[in-house]
Amino acid sequence: MSRQSRTTQPVGLWLIGARGSISTCVAYGLSGIVEGRIGPVGLVTETEPLASLPLVPLENLVLGGHDVCTRSLTNSAAELVRSQVLPPDLVEMSAARAAAFDANIAPGLLDGPDVGFADLDPRSAELGSASPREQIERIQADLRGFVVEHGLEHLVVVNLASTEAWYEDRDEWDDLADFEAALDAERSQPASIIYAYSALDAGFSYVNFTPSRGSSSAALRALAEERGTPHAGSDGKTGETLLKTVLAPMFRARALKVRAWQGYNMLGNRDGEILHDPSHRISKLRNKDEALRSILEDPDMHSHVSIDFVPSLSDWKTAWDFVHFEGFLGAEMSLQFTWQGSDSALAAPLVLDLARLCTLSAARGEVGALAHLACFFKAPLTGGSHAFQTQFDALLDYAGSS
Amino acid sequence: MSRQSRTTQPVGLWLIGARGSISTCVAYGLSGIVEGRIGPVGLVTETEPLASLPLVPLENLVLGGHDVCTRSLTNSAAELVRSQVLPPDLVEMSAARAAAFDANIAPGLLDGPDVGFADLDPRSAELGSASPREQIERIQADLRGFVVEHGLEHLVVVNLASTEAWYEDRDEWDDLADFEAALDAERSQPASIIYAYSALDAGFSYVNFTPSRGSSSAALRALAEERGTPHAGSDGKTGETLLKTVLAPMFRARALKVRAWQGYNMLGNRDGEILHDPSHRISKLRNKDEALRSILEDPDMHSHVSIDFVPSLSDWKTAWDFVHFEGFLGAEMSLQFTWQGSDSALAAPLVLDLARLCTLSAARGEVGALAHLACFFKAPLTGGSHAFQTQFDALLDYAGSS
Amino acid sequence: MSRQSRTTQPVGLWLIGARGSISTCVAYGLSGIVEGRIGPVGLVTETEPLASLPLVPLENLVLGGHDVCTRSLTNSAAELVRSQVLPPDLVEMSAARAAAFDANIAPGLLDGPDVGFADLDPRSAELGSASPREQIERIQADLRGFVVEHGLEHLVVVNLASTEAWYEDRDEWDDLADFEAALDAERSQPASIIYAYSALDAGFSYVNFTPSRGSSSAALRALAEERGTPHAGSDGKTGETLLKTVLAPMFRARALKVRAWQGYNMLGNRDGEILHDPSHRISKLRNKDEALRSILEDPDMHSHVSIDFVPSLSDWKTAWDFVHFEGFLGAEMSLQFTWQGSDSALAAPLVLDLARLCTLSAARGEVGALAHLACFFKAPLTGGSHAFQTQFDALLDYAGSS
Amino acid sequence: MSRQSRTTQPVGLWLIGARGSISTCVAYGLSGIVEGRIGPVGLVTETEPLASLPLVPLENLVLGGHDVCTRSLTNSAAELVRSQVLPPDLVEMSAARAAAFDANIAPGLLDGPDVGFADLDPRSAELGSASPREQIERIQADLRGFVVEHGLEHLVVVNLASTEAWYEDRDEWDDLADFEAALDAERSQPASIIYAYSALDAGFSYVNFTPSRGSSSAALRALAEERGTPHAGSDGKTGETLLKTVLAPMFRARALKVRAWQGYNMLGNRDGEILHDPSHRISKLRNKDEALRSILEDPDMHSHVSIDFVPSLSDWKTAWDFVHFEGFLGAEMSLQFTWQGSDSALAAPLVLDLARLCTLSAARGEVGALAHLACFFKAPLTGGSHAFQTQFDALLDYAGSS
Repeated sequence: MSRQSRTTQPVGLWLIGARGSISTCVAYGLSGIVEGRIGPVGLVTETEPLASLPLVPLENLVLGGHDVCTRSLTNSAAELVRSQVLPPDLVEMSAARAAAFDANIAPGLLDGPDVGFADLDPRSAELGSASPREQIERIQADLRGFVVEHGLEHLVVVNLASTEAWYEDRDEWDDLADFEAALDAERSQPASIIYAYSALDAGFSYVNFTPSRGSSSAALRALAEERGTPHAGSDGKTGETLLKTVLAPMFRARALKVRAWQGYNMLGNRDGEILHDPSHRISKLRNKDEALRSILEDPDMHSHVSIDFVPSLSDWKTAWDFVHFEGFLGAEMSLQFTWQGSDSALAAPLVLDLARLCTLSAARGEVGALAHLACFFKAPLTGGSHAFQTQFDALLDYAGSS
Repeated sequence: MSRQSRTTQPVGLWLIGARGSISTCVAYGLSGIVEGRIGPVGLVTETEPLASLPLVPLENLVLGGHDVCTRSLTNSAAELVRSQVLPPDLVEMSAARAAAFDANIAPGLLDGPDVGFADLDPRSAELGSASPREQIERIQADLRGFVVEHGLEHLVVVNLASTEAWYEDRDEWDDLADFEAALDAERSQPASIIYAYSALDAGFSYVNFTPSRGSSSAALRALAEERGTPHAGSDGKTGETLLKTVLAPMFRARALKVRAWQGYNMLGNRDGEILHDPSHRISKLRNKDEALRSILEDPDMHSHVSIDFVPSLSDWKTAWDFVHFEGFLGAEMSLQFTWQGSDSALAAPLVLDLARLCTLSAARGEVGALAHLACFFKAPLTGGSHAFQTQFDALLDYAGSS
Repeated sequence: MSRQSRTTQPVGLWLIGARGSISTCVAYGLSGIVEGRIGPVGLVTETEPLASLPLVPLENLVLGGHDVCTRSLTNSAAELVRSQVLPPDLVEMSAARAAAFDANIAPGLLDGPDVGFADLDPRSAELGSASPREQIERIQADLRGFVVEHGLEHLVVVNLASTEAWYEDRDEWDDLADFEAALDAERSQPASIIYAYSALDAGFSYVNFTPSRGSSSAALRALAEERGTPHAGSDGKTGETLLKTVLAPMFRARALKVRAWQGYNMLGNRDGEILHDPSHRISKLRNKDEALRSILEDPDMHSHVSIDFVPSLSDWKTAWDFVHFEGFLGAEMSLQFTWQGSDSALAAPLVLDLARLCTLSAARGEVGALAHLACFFKAPLTGGSHAFQTQFDALLDYAGSS
Repeated sequence: MSRQSRTTQPVGLWLIGARGSISTCVAYGLSGIVEGRIGPVGLVTETEPLASLPLVPLENLVLGGHDVCTRSLTNSAAELVRSQVLPPDLVEMSAARAAAFDANIAPGLLDGPDVGFADLDPRSAELGSASPREQIERIQADLRGFVVEHGLEHLVVVNLASTEAWYEDRDEWDDLADFEAALDAERSQPASIIYAYSALDAGFSYVNFTPSRGSSSAALRALAEERGTPHAGSDGKTGETLLKTVLAPMFRARALKVRAWQGYNMLGNRDGEILHDPSHRISKLRNKDEALRSILEDPDMHSHVSIDFVPSLSDWKTAWDFVHFEGFLGAEMSLQFTWQGSDSALAAPLVLDLARLCTLSAARGEVGALAHLACFFKAPLTGGSHAFQTQFDALLDYAGSS
């Protein structure tokens, strides 16, 4: 293993949904770690063997992003202080860095069905009604301007926006030429696809941390290959699904028959509110059930996943899973678990990990969907398995063979 | 991979604690599977890739064993029917096979401190007061007689007896010559060591499914190497510890800091009653905590394990674990789980798996502690890791490279 | 307190849904208690001070009923044995009494929307298409025939049928004369109302153990008053709602502010299957939420109740409730509970209690909705409070002042 | 009901353990409510019908107290901010009131066995070694000085100190004359008894919120009667035991047979640390088990309570209870709950409630152990029942008949 030297150039981390909870945690957490106020708990790239990879140092990351609302970052931070995710002193002491980030946030692209919420940036609504080609042009102008302004060696664009409404499959997404033709024909597209196209087409890494479409279609995968850019996704695996993909392989390995797996999720933040809407929820729930079915491969298994909006919980995702299983002699047994975690504090360090690992891939010329990052996602673009430990072993192998 | 032909000869499975709950489940479950009444749920050797190994067919297994009590197998079965582990019709239809097993049960060796329970076989008490060399001789006579009587190709001796009282380390256990000298000097030994010595010395495979000493000492490991016999242990990993070794690697892989891990176990069967006694409990609890510490490697972590005797639960082990952990930004989160399973129905299929895998190892000339069987144990004699998935991957590798 | 002498005459208990799980438990449980095979666990009328009331002795109860399916009682019992609710030996030893009950089961009335299930009795479908007046006539003929055949002193009709589909309110239910006119006009009515009318009009006690309409309307309440018959309902309070009405008063008494109360129910029996259908579920869920709101009286509280069909659980209702509450200083706290119980075994003793208490009321000339029975119901017809302890105190007062 | 006019004079609330977590919550919470920054959540005296009693207004309460450590109140508050019990802005804005309270804290009396902790006030150690009569004299001087300095109409002394080590029963506690003789003979006494004697003897109300001996002996009960002062205790019922005394009556009312009730408590604050010591724990656990046995009255029931020290939980008491019960037909069912609450935030409002209710009793001339306050305690001095709802009904009756 030859140790490559770490870059000393700044690298950009562009957050779509820049004023949301996860982005706010990324910003204040990064600031806190760089200034030595908090430890790097939750960051796998700060543990061995990944820490020995020639990753971009955390202090070299420069934050920017898009958002469709006008709420200030300070407001988002105050909300996370109230719900006891962000420590109040950290917010105070990171004010300068937060302001710098805030200055790098441009009006984002509003997805078609999402209209009429309170603090919508009118420029986002306006961009939402532009033609797809113009949307791409203006987004790329923001990205390139950010790179030039900060002298960035590379840029990683991460989609952290709230889950989009569900779109049915379209033929134009199966082939890059068809997709380009659809853009030319001014057929409007989901915002997540426009963003992914903008990033990949401009040669920037792209990560889809949401269940929205993003770069998952054949057309955009082809674009990434053509432009020689790496990408990864979809849907960050942070809580209940992480546990499912850790526990289900155990039942399989012990030849225990899972008869029913019921998963009940409760969430009170803006994500929870948006998932309250059935058209958005359908995107989310698909990924949560698929992992289980893929690992257990038992068509008789009964399963159920729901997400309920419980405002008082704010960012504190609480999930209860009940697994009814059969053992030897037909004995009926059960496992139940309750998971209580801050959704945003679980997601934010993964975003930093992904930004560093994508930057390394870009530097190494790794192109297309990155299989070794499957452990970060509920619906990996590629990687072969939903089983968490198998996915994580692939990441360790990648680190070990570097 | 060259496929060896399966044996068609009978193979013996000798159960120490032959009238206990696990043995009873082994006997009736084996009967039920062989006669096609129940499926092989819980048997990993009946799933791929292990099912493709040239393992002894289940119908070729002949059961025998030792026990220190006089209770009939039918009584043990009735108790398991009452506690809804054994289906009543299975017991009825397996009467002939159960009687055949019962006929093969000889009086066992009583461990020194265990005196005075109700249905103690007086011959066990008498054997308990014989000299170590005589104990070994008489146990070996039982084992060899069983082999001859049934024309067995191989014999696997499995310790399923209740956990022994705790014995402090002795110098004589560090070296085989010293141990032989201690036997000659009539220094009395824990029953589990006498059994292990008897089996290994006679060239039979030995499996220690309990936390008792068994073959774990340097002296007995040397004996196994010298006699060219395989062995495995200690302490079957069936429930709460299995979950710990599945979940702890997840926290590690995500760089989440476990601050406290509290494990509360409740059990109502004879095992639970014996563990109620502090001198027996110490043997058990050591293994349950060690796995966690080894995986997380965090000296600051607070942990606790307890086992309480709750008679009404009978065989239904119920465990509640509470994991308090810290994520990004110092956010405090928790995971708690409740596990409700029949302890004996979880253990029994592993005993059958181990018997088949040890038989294969013996046939292949694999000698000493078997590293690929680590996934079956709380305190593996060898194998390198407590992490369940890593252990299971080693078993898959063994199967795949055969 | 003047102690009345107990009746020595037989009293009839007529079960609508006579082949269902609850009725099966009533039948075998009653047989087991009368024959001294099991104790009266779950029967509050066998504990003081209720046991001192001049209640009909259990051995004097004679069972009969209606059902719309043709499944035999033996089949229902076998299913409950498989799901480990009914002990197999109890079923065997109660065969004669079960057969006697089976002989007293007549084809029931199918509710309009409930068509096309497998083992439907064609006579029930035929009765379902008769005119309301004819339905009443034929049901009353069954009831009266039963009374005459067995020389019954009194008859209590209990609705244990699966929850009916939801019916919107109708003006004709607000007034007895209007309702009689609707019957004359051959306007078809929910089965539960036809049954309630038939019982009350004939002077028999009526208990609605389901969330269906039954006798809850003003019209049927007036009928009961007019005919001088007692009635009670609705919807037996057996599990999660019982706990809610026990725990919610505690939060109220401690001035703790409940911010969210989420209730998730899972059920695998026929009831669960029928509640899987939204039009039936709506009837059920209304009652489960109403109790909580009535006790806590906090319009800001967020609450949610769901019932999911999980076939593998069969009769074993499993519920998880999560209560998020605020204490002094705004500190956020939580209580969660998991309830695992056999739905039918929880309901059956309450049916016996209600039959005995209604018989006493009839003998004493107590007329109309019985307030002292509120503790048995999720949606009491009368009684003033949903708080369980308050309701139970009313029952104790009734017993104490007798 | 004649409505008495509320006092307008200041009333003293003297806290033993004045720098501990509960006292800190009392002080900042009282300040927050009086200044209108937080609502009176958790205060039952602010809800009807109690709010209509002529209670001392919260703004008339003046705080003082004893403590054996030198830690400043500000430090205690900072710790509670870190563990997210106290809101940081409330601490800032209550600085003046907190300083006023701090000025009223005098060195307390160290209990004999409690030596050698870090921040012990040397004056407390010195007082600990004085003769009992001198201890009483100096404590009474502190109390009387406080009354005079602030012109107090009445004083309520509340024991909030950490649980004392367990003392075996002594004959001298059975009779007041014997006790006085023991004091004269300079026989050293538990600190909690000295405090209780000092308060009652001086004519002040006394409340024992801890499991320590306090005023529970016959000798001190006689003293209270003789001096005409009211008192109440012992051991505030705030969490797991509260739930037990709410749930156990439900099992009783439904004639369900509780077979086992296991309670596991975890705590990380100073109380938890002290209870880690077996001699202190014995005092605590006695009360937690007694309530259950008294309500269920079933000698066959198996029960268990434990308290474990889990430092990372700090003030967040987490309890898991598992109830194994039998229903109709012998069906085995279970209820389990997890309670997560801030121990101090649960206790503090009860202290304010008790201070107000004792002041009212003193004004009305109610003497001795106050039966209507049983609902506040795990081991009520008097009141007749452990069932929470019955106890609370007694309080409502008291309020209603005033």
